[in-house]
Amino acid sequence: MTNIEFNSHFRKQNKDVARLLIKCPDQPGIVSAVSTFLMNYGANIIESSQYSANPEGGNFFIRMEFSCPDLHTRRSDIEQSFQEISTKFNMDYEFKYVSDIKKTAIFVSKELHCLMELLWEWQNGDLIMDIGCIISNSENAEQLAKSLNIPFYYIPANKDIRMQVEEKQMRILKEHDIELIILARYMQILTPNFVSHYPNQIINIHHSFLPAFIGARPYERAYERGVKLIGATSHYVTNDLDEGPIIEQGVERVSHHDKVDDLKRIGRNIERSVLARGVKWHLQDRVIVDGNKTIVF
Amino acid sequence: MTNIEFNSHFRKQNKDVARLLIKCPDQPGIVSAVSTFLMNYGANIIESSQYSANPEGGNFFIRMEFSCPDLHTRRSDIEQSFQEISTKFNMDYEFKYVSDIKKTAIFVSKELHCLMELLWEWQNGDLIMDIGCIISNSENAEQLAKSLNIPFYYIPANKDIRMQVEEKQMRILKEHDIELIILARYMQILTPNFVSHYPNQIINIHHSFLPAFIGARPYERAYERGVKLIGATSHYVTNDLDEGPIIEQGVERVSHHDKVDDLKRIGRNIERSVLARGVKWHLQDRVIVDGNKTIVF
Amino acid sequence: MTNIEFNSHFRKQNKDVARLLIKCPDQPGIVSAVSTFLMNYGANIIESSQYSANPEGGNFFIRMEFSCPDLHTRRSDIEQSFQEISTKFNMDYEFKYVSDIKKTAIFVSKELHCLMELLWEWQNGDLIMDIGCIISNSENAEQLAKSLNIPFYYIPANKDIRMQVEEKQMRILKEHDIELIILARYMQILTPNFVSHYPNQIINIHHSFLPAFIGARPYERAYERGVKLIGATSHYVTNDLDEGPIIEQGVERVSHHDKVDDLKRIGRNIERSVLARGVKWHLQDRVIVDGNKTIVF
Amino acid sequence: MTNIEFNSHFRKQNKDVARLLIKCPDQPGIVSAVSTFLMNYGANIIESSQYSANPEGGNFFIRMEFSCPDLHTRRSDIEQSFQEISTKFNMDYEFKYVSDIKKTAIFVSKELHCLMELLWEWQNGDLIMDIGCIISNSENAEQLAKSLNIPFYYIPANKDIRMQVEEKQMRILKEHDIELIILARYMQILTPNFVSHYPNQIINIHHSFLPAFIGARPYERAYERGVKLIGATSHYVTNDLDEGPIIEQGVERVSHHDKVDDLKRIGRNIERSVLARGVKWHLQDRVIVDGNKTIVF
Repeated sequence: MTNIEFNSHFRKQNKDVARLLIKCPDQPGIVSAVSTFLMNYGANIIESSQYSANPEGGNFFIRMEFSCPDLHTRRSDIEQSFQEISTKFNMDYEFKYVSDIKKTAIFVSKELHCLMELLWEWQNGDLIMDIGCIISNSENAEQLAKSLNIPFYYIPANKDIRMQVEEKQMRILKEHDIELIILARYMQILTPNFVSHYPNQIINIHHSFLPAFIGARPYERAYERGVKLIGATSHYVTNDLDEGPIIEQGVERVSHHDKVDDLKRIGRNIERSVLARGVKWHLQDRVIVDGNKTIVF
Repeated sequence: MTNIEFNSHFRKQNKDVARLLIKCPDQPGIVSAVSTFLMNYGANIIESSQYSANPEGGNFFIRMEFSCPDLHTRRSDIEQSFQEISTKFNMDYEFKYVSDIKKTAIFVSKELHCLMELLWEWQNGDLIMDIGCIISNSENAEQLAKSLNIPFYYIPANKDIRMQVEEKQMRILKEHDIELIILARYMQILTPNFVSHYPNQIINIHHSFLPAFIGARPYERAYERGVKLIGATSHYVTNDLDEGPIIEQGVERVSHHDKVDDLKRIGRNIERSVLARGVKWHLQDRVIVDGNKTIVF
Repeated sequence: MTNIEFNSHFRKQNKDVARLLIKCPDQPGIVSAVSTFLMNYGANIIESSQYSANPEGGNFFIRMEFSCPDLHTRRSDIEQSFQEISTKFNMDYEFKYVSDIKKTAIFVSKELHCLMELLWEWQNGDLIMDIGCIISNSENAEQLAKSLNIPFYYIPANKDIRMQVEEKQMRILKEHDIELIILARYMQILTPNFVSHYPNQIINIHHSFLPAFIGARPYERAYERGVKLIGATSHYVTNDLDEGPIIEQGVERVSHHDKVDDLKRIGRNIERSVLARGVKWHLQDRVIVDGNKTIVF
Repeated sequence: MTNIEFNSHFRKQNKDVARLLIKCPDQPGIVSAVSTFLMNYGANIIESSQYSANPEGGNFFIRMEFSCPDLHTRRSDIEQSFQEISTKFNMDYEFKYVSDIKKTAIFVSKELHCLMELLWEWQNGDLIMDIGCIISNSENAEQLAKSLNIPFYYIPANKDIRMQVEEKQMRILKEHDIELIILARYMQILTPNFVSHYPNQIINIHHSFLPAFIGARPYERAYERGVKLIGATSHYVTNDLDEGPIIEQGVERVSHHDKVDDLKRIGRNIERSVLARGVKWHLQDRVIVDGNKTIVF
């Protein structure tokens, strides 16, 4: 089964499944109002998670996954009816339809291990997405992309031509209707202009256990400091370098025997799994950004 | 602050907090009915977790923790009103009041590490319980129990006098109104009669990663098999030895260097944390037994 | 850099590096004798690990990795001279030359995740081996093998034609001078005849935390038992099913939410890393089989 | 068995066991010279670990644990004879006798969890040491110390009387012949003068995953940053705050549900085990400080 067939099958299977994500001031009655609303449409709640930032006067967050008969034909009806509740409780909310598989772009530079893991999990049915394109400032990934029939764009980049490069990239992203950009060890810094077009839609993998070793050469610095664990962090990209909301982190044990190259080798395994988990949770609409933190349902 | 003072303070702070645990056939409308019921009492849902064993025709489980103004004076009112809903949806359910701190008994034999961890976490405020008594077939724990003003009962035991021993134990448990028995490395087998008096109220720590090494001498057998990880399992006791519902498991890495005594030493650390986590979740009413499995919310 | 180029480069770099593996009755003077022997050849000991099964009268094991000027031209000289020491201390021993990259065959059935991981780590320089061939009873891996220029043999198999199948396989293994067979989720049982031709040269991945769930359908049985951790085990194949010496094990946490398919998905990640680590240690001559256990240096 | 009896028994059992720790420029022949030297005394090497910082021209480190007949009567003979080798290879070295159980002092402030873990593992036979005294700027630990017959010194402290406090402390440390100071959540900063008296003899537990969150209030800052793992670090104390050589680190997973108090509670479990492991390895002479890093054999 190709990924196109798999995704087509997945869309059919999930045509009546949606997720409702809500953020609003905490008060009694929210769950009652929302669940009664869904019940009135004959919906069955499959999974529900909630979080009160502070039961006395903070925000309330909820993610409900539900199946609803004939959902695909009643989307606008449901969304319109929901406005009454959302106004009453002063809600930020979104309906996310599981059959609207997200279109993603993967940015990569020379090192392919994160890209390979994403493609592996995607082929395996663990990451449900439409990969619109792979964009790289190196040609390393070209053959791999082509073997899977994924459009590949080679755009050489350096800091002097950053604006032209990003213009090209944004044109391509627009063409492919990209909703999520995955920086799979893309070693160029993005400008504030680029980042501002994709708020909470760019996931990066940083090769350290943030906030340790912010910035360049984290493995070299970890080696010099003599740490006994190294890590990786997947996070949304903001304009503060390596300071965006953290989605997921992982670590592995190292020892005095491990030189910088060993740390890099061990680190590659952490990076690929930490990035893949972060992307997976985003694709499943499990991540809500709250200020500079994430809630992962 | 002594534990008596701590618990008294905890009771006051949580006098309006309860947990509602429900099991019923899955169908639309459950969450709506329950949350609307709670809202009508002015309750705020603090935490909610749910699980559908099988969305098409299985059981539905939910745990809701809520605070409700004046709950302590309205318990029977609420419980009575709830009968209408519970009948309609054919529910098994329980209201658990957080201020009703559970009374526990700890059974222990010669090795004290699990007992010491439980006492440590209890003194530390991590395990909220009233320890009614410690019962042992060894005198090792006597001084420790006395230093903390916990009643200690030394009851020598062996398989020939099992019935008399258990009669004594059950009399003591009754006197102290014990709701949960913790077998903290108690090395005597309990009879079906004893077990039948405390369904899903006895937690044992087994010193292996079940179902590997069921029965006696698990570390010796792990050593002989040459495993590279050893583990421990906390579970409810049933009449099938080491076959009761598993609550929690943990493992640690071992190597060819580790002899049986090393495995035991490493194992003690796993045992104490795995037992403490299992007990903690039980005390927080997070564990629902479903057949021979647990749901841990 | 292709793998052929990489391996050729690796051979040159390591032409003077060897590993000496010894097993003998424990007694004073072994380390002195061996290290003095090596010093007399101008060798530098790069890494050394030893293990005494029982300091009073058991076996002694040592692995020394050393570099020695002009080793590639003095192999037979060194090996011959060593006989005096080996006789004196009654040693089982082997000199392993790092530049003699091991020739491996990968056996696989329908599921490709373990094969893909091995190929990934091989391309990445983490597994240093010459992959002589891939043998499968399914055609799933054919294209992947061909894209990497690895000979692929499709040999349909079932228990009625086991002998003919194994004859074919052994002919191919001989042609390719295979020294290590990796069963990367190969779902056919090997006969005692086959196994006897490759003692401690066949590594299998079993999809459970042995000795739990020996035999078929481990994930289904783990689900039924309600375990909270699932695992995988890489081990040498002997004629006792799933009873061979364990090289490496790993686990991941699961919950009541995880159905059998989820366990399989989570399990695939454990399987691939546990198999890859076991294979890596074998390729680095770190694994010594001692009875039904392994020493992993 | 009391700890005094246990230690006395341990001394007898290990009266012929020693550890030789060596650091010297790397060159061929070191292992040969040392192991031949030991063999000539009839010694049996029980455990041996080595490390080459850089095979081409760096330092070489080795730790050998050996038993030697009548060692207790031949210490000075052996040490004197060894000078020839040590001069030839330009070695820094130490003979450590296992029966010379190390005298330690534990410094603690209000929070007792690290102290309790150390005492627990000490009573359990996991940490072999003579606890000379417990010194605290709080009275919290007094009763616990007295119940175990450990001298307790209450010395109120604040930054204005730092010098007088340290004078008192150093007098007590001298009286008790203290060789290792364990800062078990001692919340006062030590002066350079104090630290200079105990180079690589003071082990601290820092309540973060260094170098993240150096300095004060690490859990509050971890909460604000929204990390998904928190950690602890045991390290030798130098005059650069939280910058000394790291011995051991550990982490645990946290989530958006965890408030600062939850992080502290989870953190306490990491702190106590990370400190205990660091202390254990020091007591076993496994830690060699090399610049600002540790080698842990």
